[in-house]
Amino acid sequence: MKNDKVEPRTLPGFMELMPQDQIEFDRIKSIIEDSYKKYGFLPIDTPIIEDSNVLLAKAGGETEKQIYRFSKGDNDLSLRFDLTVPLAKYVAKNYGQLSFPFRRYQIGKVYRAERPQKGRYREFYQCDIDVIGDETLSITNDAEMPSIIYQIFSKLDFGKFTIRINNRKLLGGFFESLGLENRIEDILKIVDKLDKIGIDNVKEMLQDEKVDSDSIEKIVQFVSTKENVIQFLESLNISNDTFVKGLSEIKEVSKYMIAFGVPENYFRIDLSIARGLDYYTGTVFETTLDDLPNIGSVCSGGRYDNLAEYYTDKKLPGVGISIGLTRLYYILNEYNLIKNDSLSKSVSKAIILPMSQDFEYSIKVATLLRNMGINAEVYFEDKAFKKKLNYANKQNIPYAIIIGDDEINSETVAIKNMQTGEQQNIKLSDMTIDLFK
Amino acid sequence: MKNDKVEPRTLPGFMELMPQDQIEFDRIKSIIEDSYKKYGFLPIDTPIIEDSNVLLAKAGGETEKQIYRFSKGDNDLSLRFDLTVPLAKYVAKNYGQLSFPFRRYQIGKVYRAERPQKGRYREFYQCDIDVIGDETLSITNDAEMPSIIYQIFSKLDFGKFTIRINNRKLLGGFFESLGLENRIEDILKIVDKLDKIGIDNVKEMLQDEKVDSDSIEKIVQFVSTKENVIQFLESLNISNDTFVKGLSEIKEVSKYMIAFGVPENYFRIDLSIARGLDYYTGTVFETTLDDLPNIGSVCSGGRYDNLAEYYTDKKLPGVGISIGLTRLYYILNEYNLIKNDSLSKSVSKAIILPMSQDFEYSIKVATLLRNMGINAEVYFEDKAFKKKLNYANKQNIPYAIIIGDDEINSETVAIKNMQTGEQQNIKLSDMTIDLFK
Repeated sequence: MKNDKVEPRTLPGFMELMPQDQIEFDRIKSIIEDSYKKYGFLPIDTPIIEDSNVLLAKAGGETEKQIYRFSKGDNDLSLRFDLTVPLAKYVAKNYGQLSFPFRRYQIGKVYRAERPQKGRYREFYQCDIDVIGDETLSITNDAEMPSIIYQIFSKLDFGKFTIRINNRKLLGGFFESLGLENRIEDILKIVDKLDKIGIDNVKEMLQDEKVDSDSIEKIVQFVSTKENVIQFLESLNISNDTFVKGLSEIKEVSKYMIAFGVPENYFRIDLSIARGLDYYTGTVFETTLDDLPNIGSVCSGGRYDNLAEYYTDKKLPGVGISIGLTRLYYILNEYNLIKNDSLSKSVSKAIILPMSQDFEYSIKVATLLRNMGINAEVYFEDKAFKKKLNYANKQNIPYAIIIGDDEINSETVAIKNMQTGEQQNIKLSDMTIDLFK
Repeated sequence: MKNDKVEPRTLPGFMELMPQDQIEFDRIKSIIEDSYKKYGFLPIDTPIIEDSNVLLAKAGGETEKQIYRFSKGDNDLSLRFDLTVPLAKYVAKNYGQLSFPFRRYQIGKVYRAERPQKGRYREFYQCDIDVIGDETLSITNDAEMPSIIYQIFSKLDFGKFTIRINNRKLLGGFFESLGLENRIEDILKIVDKLDKIGIDNVKEMLQDEKVDSDSIEKIVQFVSTKENVIQFLESLNISNDTFVKGLSEIKEVSKYMIAFGVPENYFRIDLSIARGLDYYTGTVFETTLDDLPNIGSVCSGGRYDNLAEYYTDKKLPGVGISIGLTRLYYILNEYNLIKNDSLSKSVSKAIILPMSQDFEYSIKVATLLRNMGINAEVYFEDKAFKKKLNYANKQNIPYAIIIGDDEINSETVAIKNMQTGEQQNIKLSDMTIDLFK
């Protein structure tokens, strides 16, 4: 009877970490959240389940297939697949109560029923910020985004990274100047693959699209220019309005990025970046880890003209970025970019190991430590001392406080540094936070 | 064409707060999480979606009806309805890798398709801790739980509260001594309603259950004794093994609770508490806010013999507590227990208001503040000064830093205290964190 156990499995495509790894995951999440707050973004927390009519107002094609959609009672429900559509709903719904520009962050799980494969998750965290304007939004907000990316990835300390920026108006205007304005979307899709498939394949694909060879050369030169890009753009002397607007925007963004403290070697203008999504209309961002060029962007975003057109007539331009935290964590882990000293972190700074089953003094010591702001636990189980030390070691707890009869009688504690093995006896009244640094 | 907008609505039964309220919600969540860490609990984060076979291994009846269950491809999926079943799965699955006692916390959303009504949510946060032993678990862990409850609700500062504790063995042994051991569950269910329906109704229901009147008197005296409970229990002279075990446990828990620093007027033994769930086997806890006796328990839990019997033959006893954060927040809001000074908190401590469209100096000031650890934002929009101040006021940002040409030329800042209206001009190089306290 006891033998018909259910196998305790977790679904494929769902990340579930061991506690030690979860501590590191949460540390990264905290760095991201604290950085978002440092820039004054406000928290919101929208439901994971939404009415399908609301959530899928815009969706279609590939996205819709990946939605977890189901009914309960009379309700047609879906799990959110990003944090942008819920933001659009939220802003449209609460327009009258919000102050604009509305600076919001949201960190939460989203769901896509993708075919599970390495590094692809069906449940994953997105960490988003957006600034939403009412009718208008200053271009300076675009320049602030890279400075937030810079802050976060500097703090995360996973090696050198590069923030690539472009402007969809530059691309759009350039293609208009070639008389290819009706095929911008198709051409951008091909150009977007440049990093992946190389120049020759892009050229070939453009030929297949019946782009004339003169234009192909210009397009390839355009997207391949990596140095002195602004001078190059100016030298093109394109008078197309969209292009001129894009040039002015990217100049302004570049200028303010430096004021925001982004070092010049951490960003570059990359005219080959288009971003797949069709709603970006101005500045676009990607962030790549220099040591891992093949993993793609770890933080992307951009400027859009109209956040919530499916819900409201209000014009709500915005700019935002998103970090796919679950995928980022997977990559860091896969490429051993998580430092050992991070992985050896514990929640508890100290563990109290009572040598007898009389716990009152041990509990007193624990309470004292906690009141000093030190995370601490007591090992209450009746096991051999070696087992207790093993537990402390496995948890990577840096200090063990051993409480025997001597300590109880003399009101002292024996503090053992678990890394060096050093042990010191001190009076309980002399115990300070500095002993646990 | 632009007029077929979708109404941006949020489903009933789903809490979605305005940013100001979300800040307060998050503050409460942080206090709970930090307190759990203070006691050395380790984080885990299990998926919201689980295989229905795994999640519903134990469930049945009322619970199963409330599950969001659906299929995607060949998978029969369900959304978790608590954090205990996922914990059982997690511990059974990772048994070999975990250290015991395993102290874990998890804070996350769970889902129940209840009929939406005031204060009932279909998506709500649970904040759980559990200590899981391997084969055995010291009773001292039971005594630690109330001290964590005490820490949290003291810090939350929502008024006086009372932690009520009981022990299922006391109840069980007592009923056995009356020869009612086969009807414990039914009788406990009736007794559990004492607070809600009163003594007379409980007596009547027990008569309907054909309990003899002598036993009814004993039962009612038992559950109604609120003072000197341990003396009362000893005076009963019940020799039943279960009862004796329960008495010894509750004495030990009471003793250590005091060592853990829970003041005596913050807890009491309440023999009427049984907790509805059928898996508690020892200590049980409830927490009530003294000023709001009718809202029921805001933090409950207890001791169970076997966490994961549906998944493994290993015997895994545990003790834990859970805070239903979404419901708690609803109650605090409904009864105006959230303090005004909490509600007037902003994320940004300072807002920089540039008087011209030249932002370089303003950005420099913002970067300086952020590097000092101060959350700050810049208002970049081209609006009248009054509008800028309005924005700062609506966001409750305590300090506005006004940057005009004078400030730029003299490398100074004008810092305005938004509450007092006081304004001071100081050199940028003299700006310190103390000015924003």
